[in-house]
Amino acid sequence: MIASARPVHALLIAIMLALAGPGDLLADEAGTKAPAENAVASFELDNGLQVVVIPDHRAPVVTHMLWYKVGSADEQAGKSGIAHFFEHLMFKGTKNHPPGEFATRVAEIGGQENAFTSYDHTAYFQQVRPEALKTMMSYEADRMRNLVLTDEVIDVERNVVLEERRQRVESSPGALLGEELDATLYQNHPYRIPVIGWMHEIEALNRDDAVAFYNRFYVPNNAVLVVAGDVEAEQVRALAEATYGKIARGPDLSARLRPQEPEQNTRRTVTLSDDRVSRPSLRMAWVVPSYETGAPGEAEALDLLSEILGGGPRTRLYEELVVRQGVASSVGAYYQGDAVDDTSFELYGAPRGQAALEEVEDAIVAEIAKIAAEGVTEKELARAKRRYQRGYVFARDSQSGMARIYGTTLTTGGSIEDINEWPARIKAVSAEQVKQAAQALDQGRAVVGYLLPAQSQEDDAR
Amino acid sequence: MIASARPVHALLIAIMLALAGPGDLLADEAGTKAPAENAVASFELDNGLQVVVIPDHRAPVVTHMLWYKVGSADEQAGKSGIAHFFEHLMFKGTKNHPPGEFATRVAEIGGQENAFTSYDHTAYFQQVRPEALKTMMSYEADRMRNLVLTDEVIDVERNVVLEERRQRVESSPGALLGEELDATLYQNHPYRIPVIGWMHEIEALNRDDAVAFYNRFYVPNNAVLVVAGDVEAEQVRALAEATYGKIARGPDLSARLRPQEPEQNTRRTVTLSDDRVSRPSLRMAWVVPSYETGAPGEAEALDLLSEILGGGPRTRLYEELVVRQGVASSVGAYYQGDAVDDTSFELYGAPRGQAALEEVEDAIVAEIAKIAAEGVTEKELARAKRRYQRGYVFARDSQSGMARIYGTTLTTGGSIEDINEWPARIKAVSAEQVKQAAQALDQGRAVVGYLLPAQSQEDDAR
Repeated sequence: MIASARPVHALLIAIMLALAGPGDLLADEAGTKAPAENAVASFELDNGLQVVVIPDHRAPVVTHMLWYKVGSADEQAGKSGIAHFFEHLMFKGTKNHPPGEFATRVAEIGGQENAFTSYDHTAYFQQVRPEALKTMMSYEADRMRNLVLTDEVIDVERNVVLEERRQRVESSPGALLGEELDATLYQNHPYRIPVIGWMHEIEALNRDDAVAFYNRFYVPNNAVLVVAGDVEAEQVRALAEATYGKIARGPDLSARLRPQEPEQNTRRTVTLSDDRVSRPSLRMAWVVPSYETGAPGEAEALDLLSEILGGGPRTRLYEELVVRQGVASSVGAYYQGDAVDDTSFELYGAPRGQAALEEVEDAIVAEIAKIAAEGVTEKELARAKRRYQRGYVFARDSQSGMARIYGTTLTTGGSIEDINEWPARIKAVSAEQVKQAAQALDQGRAVVGYLLPAQSQEDDAR
Repeated sequence: MIASARPVHALLIAIMLALAGPGDLLADEAGTKAPAENAVASFELDNGLQVVVIPDHRAPVVTHMLWYKVGSADEQAGKSGIAHFFEHLMFKGTKNHPPGEFATRVAEIGGQENAFTSYDHTAYFQQVRPEALKTMMSYEADRMRNLVLTDEVIDVERNVVLEERRQRVESSPGALLGEELDATLYQNHPYRIPVIGWMHEIEALNRDDAVAFYNRFYVPNNAVLVVAGDVEAEQVRALAEATYGKIARGPDLSARLRPQEPEQNTRRTVTLSDDRVSRPSLRMAWVVPSYETGAPGEAEALDLLSEILGGGPRTRLYEELVVRQGVASSVGAYYQGDAVDDTSFELYGAPRGQAALEEVEDAIVAEIAKIAAEGVTEKELARAKRRYQRGYVFARDSQSGMARIYGTTLTTGGSIEDINEWPARIKAVSAEQVKQAAQALDQGRAVVGYLLPAQSQEDDAR
């Protein structure tokens, strides 16, 4: 049960590129076929549940993922953390099954399960033998509507979540800085609020909040079922109708219209000086379009810019800061493309040895400026696109990777058509578009987070 | 019609201290009596309207103020500006009176009128001859429930409000910086959102929003009527019953529970570099307790700290930065004590001549540190208290000042008893309490706004 704020979009692109690539890319070393694009089936049950089936017959395994179109950004103001808290509650008992029975069952049959909550979605998944799929569906459908939410259940789990927050956030200066950086980057949109929720608001979550959340969002017409693996579409349809199909459609949900960001006119910094920090580091962020909000090609260009700047070794930041100048021990870029609303583009780095954090910052700024002024070469653009493709060799081994692509896209406002068109859209990105993307990363509107050892605060904080 | 974010609390304290002071302070130069504390009457109509009467017979004038317990911090997420927008709409026509008739009537009888919206309240007032009071009440009661809100009225006024925002905010780098500084200081509480609203949200406000806002908040049980002037309580009661008393009580309103701030771990800066700026300046802010949220004495100590640091000439910041070091051309302090929730304490300054902004900042920081380490002297504490008293000589000439005290206090969660006890509570503040207040103004959690000329961004922005 993790509150992941970071779905791996690069992976998505990687797999999609590969799917649309030349045929030989679709065969792995053993020569078996990866799931072909046209084999993916999609249909909707009468109660509104959207179903996607991704046949993958390489092994007798099936990945069963149920995605809800609700994440922390859909929470009511003042109730931060309820989406993630609710993910925990889904592992409690139902009217039909005592607490722990579902998990025990998964373990008994040698399966794996997990769940995660992000800004825009919450997902539950199990990976099991195909014979167990119906059982999984039956349990998953059961807890969609039959959870037993008593004060006692809530009280116990609240403590678990609070402890999770203490371990993952309160005890980590980097996580604390990250939270306050996000809340400074976004000033109106709920992406400013941590997925796990703020301590004082988690503490106040109660049974009424949980019940209201459950009844509003945990309905078949707000969910997407993704099944990948050694199954066929019609088989899945029959199983889905026999399980999920028996659940009544819930009330219609209103559109996910979150408050949007105002115009940003300022540069902002957030500094955490903490004696638990031994090595300083920085993060530099901007609000940028997502795949959902961007004009055609904008998000794709940001993905490639992220790859060119900081996608790994042989990228600009690494080559310049780590290899050539030797001022950074680590550096990178991150773009959260899958998002219902405008999202974040981030660069980060830490100095090496005696180098100052400011040298790292200046060098990062210089690399952005260089692309903004001179653009990227066709060669490195092609290399960036190829890097996505190479990622496929790793990615296709993960059946759940495919399921994640569909789940993430379909719960953040995208369509199966978007997924199909993705590879072509990435391929179509021009060097000029990447240059324009870099030009939008204006220093006058950057939001920079500094993580500093306690003693250096006076010197570096401004 | 102003969207004032800054009620003058210092004035309030000044008047209250004076009221509780020695008798000779209560007589002005002509020897007439200022309103005596015990003459203030308060009662509630059957429909829930709270009424306060402050007799003041120095002149044949009456101040009629109707306060609503709703401000921008009560707005629904995504609907910023509706409280202030609605203040504008209240000057449109009603079922009984065409647009402009009320204002014309006030002008004809030589009266004055105005209205203002803040975070926690919205108020409407007229100052007229006592004979016109019933007419004012009649018009004011009428528009509490009988406004005609057509799409046309909304559309026209939206443009007026947008133009107001353009003139007051968009064309002012200082105002733009202030907005983003507030939104960086507060990360969860609606005080982060400008009272006038964000441009893109004002643009989207429509008739449905206005009607919902009106029906929820503009009801007698959410209002406080304050009448100060040449009237008696029983006379006001009769008039209020004949006018406001005829309005039906509205639905009960829920408590004003706004999302509260999470723990703050970081220092933050907000920098606006703009070629319209000729002289740099800075603002340094903290979230601190208000009169409503503070422990006994906390808000009072913050008020006195603000006075001692930056209440005018002969205060610490002025003496040190302007007079002795000569690095600042202006410097000051501001504490927004009257607030339903935790509020802001702010210091500000601008360099003189060739002095650097950093010198001003360092000197401000040093003055806070000095009080935090060494405290204040009994002499300057007494002087700060006396300065409030001297403010009375000016303040008591303003009948509306008294009305504002009651309106502000009663619409931010305070009581008449709080007002009565205020002078004694200010008098009781110890030097140690002021020292503790200064200790809470920690540099590791300061939020600093820099307003810079465009060219200096690269040098000063971090």
